[in-house]
Amino acid sequence: MSKNHNKLPIKIIPLGGLHEIGKNTCVFEYEDEIILLDAGLAFPTDEMHGINIVLPDMTYIRENRHKIKGMIVTHGHEDHIGGIAYHLKQFDIPVIYGPRLAMTLLQDKLEEAGVSDRTTLKSVVPRETVKLGKNFVVQFIRNTHSIADSFTVAIHTPLGVIIHTGDFKIDHTPVDGEHYDLQKLAEYGEKGVLCLLSDSTNAEVPGHTPSESSVYPNLDRIFAQAEGRIMVTTFASSVHRVNLILQLAQKHQRKVMVVGRSMLNVIAHARNLGYIKCPDDLFESIKSLRHFPDEKTLILTTGSQGEPLAAMTRISKGEHRQIKVKRGDTIVFSANPIPGNTIAVVNTIDRLMMEGATVVYGKQQGIHVSGHGAQEDHKLMLALTKPKFFIPVHGEHRMLVKHAQMAQSMGIPKENMVVIDNGDIIELREDSISVAGQVPSGIELVDRSGIVHDNVMKERQQLAEDGVITVAAAIDWSGKLVAIPGTHLRGVVTAMEHSLLQQLICRTLETTLSDRWKNFTSQVDRELEVDWTGLKNEIEGSLQRLIRRELQSRPLVVFLLQIPEKPMVRSTRRRKRPSAAASVAS
Amino acid sequence: MSKNHNKLPIKIIPLGGLHEIGKNTCVFEYEDEIILLDAGLAFPTDEMHGINIVLPDMTYIRENRHKIKGMIVTHGHEDHIGGIAYHLKQFDIPVIYGPRLAMTLLQDKLEEAGVSDRTTLKSVVPRETVKLGKNFVVQFIRNTHSIADSFTVAIHTPLGVIIHTGDFKIDHTPVDGEHYDLQKLAEYGEKGVLCLLSDSTNAEVPGHTPSESSVYPNLDRIFAQAEGRIMVTTFASSVHRVNLILQLAQKHQRKVMVVGRSMLNVIAHARNLGYIKCPDDLFESIKSLRHFPDEKTLILTTGSQGEPLAAMTRISKGEHRQIKVKRGDTIVFSANPIPGNTIAVVNTIDRLMMEGATVVYGKQQGIHVSGHGAQEDHKLMLALTKPKFFIPVHGEHRMLVKHAQMAQSMGIPKENMVVIDNGDIIELREDSISVAGQVPSGIELVDRSGIVHDNVMKERQQLAEDGVITVAAAIDWSGKLVAIPGTHLRGVVTAMEHSLLQQLICRTLETTLSDRWKNFTSQVDRELEVDWTGLKNEIEGSLQRLIRRELQSRPLVVFLLQIPEKPMVRSTRRRKRPSAAASVAS
Repeated sequence: MSKNHNKLPIKIIPLGGLHEIGKNTCVFEYEDEIILLDAGLAFPTDEMHGINIVLPDMTYIRENRHKIKGMIVTHGHEDHIGGIAYHLKQFDIPVIYGPRLAMTLLQDKLEEAGVSDRTTLKSVVPRETVKLGKNFVVQFIRNTHSIADSFTVAIHTPLGVIIHTGDFKIDHTPVDGEHYDLQKLAEYGEKGVLCLLSDSTNAEVPGHTPSESSVYPNLDRIFAQAEGRIMVTTFASSVHRVNLILQLAQKHQRKVMVVGRSMLNVIAHARNLGYIKCPDDLFESIKSLRHFPDEKTLILTTGSQGEPLAAMTRISKGEHRQIKVKRGDTIVFSANPIPGNTIAVVNTIDRLMMEGATVVYGKQQGIHVSGHGAQEDHKLMLALTKPKFFIPVHGEHRMLVKHAQMAQSMGIPKENMVVIDNGDIIELREDSISVAGQVPSGIELVDRSGIVHDNVMKERQQLAEDGVITVAAAIDWSGKLVAIPGTHLRGVVTAMEHSLLQQLICRTLETTLSDRWKNFTSQVDRELEVDWTGLKNEIEGSLQRLIRRELQSRPLVVFLLQIPEKPMVRSTRRRKRPSAAASVAS
Repeated sequence: MSKNHNKLPIKIIPLGGLHEIGKNTCVFEYEDEIILLDAGLAFPTDEMHGINIVLPDMTYIRENRHKIKGMIVTHGHEDHIGGIAYHLKQFDIPVIYGPRLAMTLLQDKLEEAGVSDRTTLKSVVPRETVKLGKNFVVQFIRNTHSIADSFTVAIHTPLGVIIHTGDFKIDHTPVDGEHYDLQKLAEYGEKGVLCLLSDSTNAEVPGHTPSESSVYPNLDRIFAQAEGRIMVTTFASSVHRVNLILQLAQKHQRKVMVVGRSMLNVIAHARNLGYIKCPDDLFESIKSLRHFPDEKTLILTTGSQGEPLAAMTRISKGEHRQIKVKRGDTIVFSANPIPGNTIAVVNTIDRLMMEGATVVYGKQQGIHVSGHGAQEDHKLMLALTKPKFFIPVHGEHRMLVKHAQMAQSMGIPKENMVVIDNGDIIELREDSISVAGQVPSGIELVDRSGIVHDNVMKERQQLAEDGVITVAAAIDWSGKLVAIPGTHLRGVVTAMEHSLLQQLICRTLETTLSDRWKNFTSQVDRELEVDWTGLKNEIEGSLQRLIRRELQSRPLVVFLLQIPEKPMVRSTRRRKRPSAAASVAS
């Protein structure tokens, strides 16, 4: 039995989290059992028009849903738990194990989506061990990260122990006093780790990532110097940072008004669970803002990334109901812009400064540190766990390459590591690691109404570039227009008078129609021979050429053709004709 | 007369270049004379769908075109000369003075746009003095910047000397040996400078900007280590960088193949004018790529910013006809991503690495330096020119604020400087500076077909977010549909069968129409009373509600209504009806 086991490889299939930061989702499979590690979402890039969230392609899981024994969650960030509610609409997960804070946040999401009956959430404590199926035993190892209650996991499999770091930094002075359980890592290193999967986010950054605590004195100084109101924006999910800000508000005797749904939500849960400790009377409702003197006020808000609908963005645009910026305000951006958000963030800062606020931002201020370890932290991780095989994860391609180079420099042979892509099937054996194929990978885009497919995104792109011109024409069975064609422009640039454009369109239609009809010799000919689709395409082509020539732009041209039913039509064809007419328009 | 002069202020009106990097355009006005300093363009942000370039609002210049005595150009970058060809379609500029390289590049642009007869271009040499109108005398002072042949200008006015730095860094070891003319700056400082306008791009960056020459040894090392082909991408307009790369190609005995229209163009002009000196046989056509061994090849391309159509981007996507990336290639990004381009650049790098290339990029490599001075350079500029009044220009708001703070720290009183916005009218007198109003500012967006207005951009945004549903219906005078309505979806997400959606639309139309028509008691009623616009709006409203409910998305709904002419219609109304019908659709 044990011999037999050794011949089957463990399959590790990352479905998201590579080639991007976001939507971390990983499959571990052995025999007929699958466990999942995290299932996150990503946020859309600017080209993803109308998209709210981005998920990995879950085809492989849908097709193998019967194998799922459960899920492990490492921590409560959106890019690790944000996809779960969507997936539970497609398949059940018998049990999800994870830290208390993550499970509490997840519970909310599942309830909101109406899928909380599709799984069971179970909170774990540090060093707790859980069994999933007959092949997997997972031990949760406390780590340090920007959110409280975060874990590295050791997955015991029939082939050996696989360690997945989760997201981590190595913070020797953590804000909540909960240290990284380096002893447990070292113990696994001593006993033997088959494979390490490790966070690569900051693999391009030399040195160590400073401790979260290093932010404290810098914020303290800024708070001490502020004479009017203080506003601070940071990630709602950076529980330690929020904790520091609340401690400093107390120290500087300011009441805290929390603005933004996610910020309120995280603070409530973190206080309930004891990750944030502060008295109730520290908080006041934002509605009571005008009852407190400026120098006794601290507003803590979302919007550190310039997100269009977040509180700080609306404040900067003068669109927030309760908060107007005024001279004397000190506004602190305790977060760095994520690439892609830079312009939105600096525009927000500029607007706030123009309203008279003193804005404190930027790397030189020491008011933000990363939640992810840098190169020296990665090396320490490798040194403690001494893995036989290594897979850099959680990062874009060049970060994975850098991380792999570091591992090589520490003596792990090149053939003992793989630099992988989403969807790769990694086969891990006791004595080898390799990529043995691919499952469907890629992304699923979700907007208000559901999954959005590629062709729809392409259409939206074209609509965005040049707009759309719609032409509707109704003709009779003699090929004559029965009314002046309707035309409608949206998102199209033209200096041309609408009536002139309409005339040109009308003339183009008449020419095409009469060319086509002059070949018919009888009424019966026409009824039998009109190739509606061909006619529609021909007209659409003529219109497209007309518009490109006259408007010098390339809008989408939509042409709708209608053929009224005639009173004397033979009853047998009655149904066919109008539906043909309607269908050419679709 | 002189007394009288002293009472009128100089007006300085920046139309672009503030609150953004790009489209630098500045007006100097005295009595009935205007001179312009530069007229650049900016590139669109991601939200500007379909837009090719961004220009400042030129209303003020159009309205005062009769006052224009000429233009001064400081250097040949797009954000300083790229707008001129567009503006010359709207107004003449009697004469444009500028450096030889800028004038040569500009000449090409004007010829391409067919407007070279609308102005006269005159090249200037260092320390040359030119007179514009009766009030302005301008001296050109050699400066150092990333493009060759760049100038700071001293504008002599009836009130005193105004110095505009242009874009500058202070580079004591310039690649072309042309030093900043600090002596002339000092001389002006000694004689007295009324006002300094100074480049603020790097006002947030501490220290000095390193010399362009500092890049040389780092590129040299990388070239020496490369075993296969070398590809280098940088800004085409960074003439000094291109020069260095060509020198190094010679040193390492590699043939240079230049790819990308702008790169070819700038190299040709810079060689003609002697800013780049290298033998003809250094260059080979990219078509002969396969005839040279890899280790004897250097490909110099555009695309350092991940621009979708640039050579390096197409190479990374495998879409370039002549160049396919292969293992052994060393690809050097000798440019930092401009904010907003970061994601495009790193995606390009990732794709190149996945093809097997070694990609060298990033700040730590020392292969790129800025063309703009940092804080210590700014201070030196202020120290040399000792201006009475100070206006930070060329930067976003927070950079202007930082630059103003530096000037204050050096003893210029706060009331002697203004932090301004595009369109501000600065009134500069011998003893005061103030903002005395505003001219129309903002932006003009240009796409293939011309200026694009705000409402069109909003329509494009909506189309991009949710797509468009078009419905066309033809009805007769009894309010009945004469055919199944045509429907067409683009960029819309729905799981609903097209035929079902069509049925629902048809039913909605029928209901609305019959509700409306049941109030009419006679044929004459209908013909007199149908409020076509009201009817169209009502139907559009019903359709919108239907679609939001059934599809749970919010596409644009376009409804086109057509009323066929009836055979028995009274001839007096014959023309009116169909045109009313057509117009409701527009």
